[in-house]
Amino acid sequence: MVLVAPRNPLNIGAAARAMANFGCPRLRVVNPYEVAFREARSAVGAAPLLAAAQEFTTVAEAVADCGLVVGTTSVGHRELQHSLRRLEFGARLMRKAAGPVALLFGSEKFGLSNEDMSHCHWLMRIPTVDLNRSMNLGQAVAVCLYELARDARAAAARPEKMKAALAVETEQITAMLVEALDRSGYIKPLMAASTKAKVRRLVRRLNIGARDAPVVLGMLRQILWKLHGPEEK
Amino acid sequence: MVLVAPRNPLNIGAAARAMANFGCPRLRVVNPYEVAFREARSAVGAAPLLAAAQEFTTVAEAVADCGLVVGTTSVGHRELQHSLRRLEFGARLMRKAAGPVALLFGSEKFGLSNEDMSHCHWLMRIPTVDLNRSMNLGQAVAVCLYELARDARAAAARPEKMKAALAVETEQITAMLVEALDRSGYIKPLMAASTKAKVRRLVRRLNIGARDAPVVLGMLRQILWKLHGPEEK
Repeated sequence: MVLVAPRNPLNIGAAARAMANFGCPRLRVVNPYEVAFREARSAVGAAPLLAAAQEFTTVAEAVADCGLVVGTTSVGHRELQHSLRRLEFGARLMRKAAGPVALLFGSEKFGLSNEDMSHCHWLMRIPTVDLNRSMNLGQAVAVCLYELARDARAAAARPEKMKAALAVETEQITAMLVEALDRSGYIKPLMAASTKAKVRRLVRRLNIGARDAPVVLGMLRQILWKLHGPEEK
Repeated sequence: MVLVAPRNPLNIGAAARAMANFGCPRLRVVNPYEVAFREARSAVGAAPLLAAAQEFTTVAEAVADCGLVVGTTSVGHRELQHSLRRLEFGARLMRKAAGPVALLFGSEKFGLSNEDMSHCHWLMRIPTVDLNRSMNLGQAVAVCLYELARDARAAAARPEKMKAALAVETEQITAMLVEALDRSGYIKPLMAASTKAKVRRLVRRLNIGARDAPVVLGMLRQILWKLHGPEEK
């Protein structure tokens, strides 16, 4: 992670925090605004990372030991002389790269200069909406590191299965609910059969889980006890 | 997007900016620290969004018109009484949801309370490293909105093809480079044939693009002109 000419200590701290969040350990800074660099503070987890940050005076020195150098930009394609890739795809290429990869972010106000970009193999952009392309530096760093850390298999996962209540429990719930409704006067005698079927379908649609079935039964039991009245107890 | 009890105006502004970046128009705030809410400023693009933010006193009112309510947390699974999904997967479910979806973020210091969470259908976490789970609020908002805006097809895209130089151009480059090396004394007579083959393989490995071939030829032509010396001109 290489920040070129950052100006705002809050952004340097935020970048370091995102790096700590996503397990990216090495921060390099090129020509920071000195005050900003000294004043940068961050959450507890990122403090060692910030303390170990290396300072350079040129982009060439900051990326010297890297095999792939990727710049970030919010500028549209036509104005650039580099290949421009969307983050989703660029991150895939970065993960595949054999050696160390440098990811460059420009200053808050101007982004990377043409000179900075000429050290890059290609450029990457976060897919923001056209009307509001420019992101906050700390947020852009977080989004890029998230995409690099993202697990495509996690997205494709099947929903975790909640263990369903057994049919015997669901039917017990149905019976007790029907009794409660009957005692409350909700079930009209002429419609009794169809209402009971309606209640049965509704209870099944609720997909009550194995964990929740005893709770629901307990609630219904208590309501029925109250409906029966103390004299019947 | 629902921010519950945010305390820091910078974070409210940063959340609004990320919303503008990723085309998420509606911001709702529950019980903000009043000063923070009034002082929240943001980049130009997010100002209208911030001005239109709605304020509520309870989570229930803030999410009333939503069909799916998702909470965010950095806490591990064991301590929670909800289903917890990774962002990659949770975002997919949110995109599939039929009606409006509310995404809740808790306060910077404490996150969502158990009471806040009880309004949620399920919870979502950003896949940060275990040692540094807690993210900055503005960065967490940006990462979640990025995942929601992310295009899986963009990740699967084939690299854009750079138009390659024609074999005739590549061979011209090879011939001129060989001549320049010969005149410079790089090619030893005994090794001439194998060196030329080596140069030819190297030039092909460079994968010179159609756009770059004339530039390289022009450079070599100038170098050859200089190597020939003025007297031969």
